Amino acid sequence: MSTTTHTVTGMTCDHCVAAVTEEVSAIDGVSNVDVVLATGQVTVTSTTPIDETALREAVEEAGYVLA
Amino acid sequence: MSTTTHTVTGMTCDHCVAAVTEEVSAIDGVSNVDVVLATGQVTVTSTTPIDETALREAVEEAGYVLA
Repeated sequence: MSTTTHTVTGMTCDHCVAAVTEEVSAIDGVSNVDVVLATGQVTVTSTTPIDETALREAVEEAGYVLA
Repeated sequence: MSTTTHTVTGMTCDHCVAAVTEEVSAIDGVSNVDVVLATGQVTVTSTTPIDETALREAVEEAGYVLA
């Protein structure tokens, strides 16, 4: 298992958290996503180290930016 | 038809706008809801004058506050 923490900017409310969680959770191998709205920290647990490009695309698909 | 404009506080993003629009649109007789995120203005068009209590409850159901 691999756990990494990233920063996402632009989230302002719980709906934003839900959108990011949903998109990142859909990445292959991701088993858990934890988002802290106040800090923008997104902690991703996955079976293999998460692909940065896939993560970036998922965050952008949700409408936000991976810092 | 009746058109009234109200102010809702707490909306921060397009998801918030969608949540308020959905809940207010579900009120009996409401035919159109227009939300301006920047100002919090919610304009409601309905077949009969909208019930203030129903509006307040719908806004609160969405997670926001009718000012």
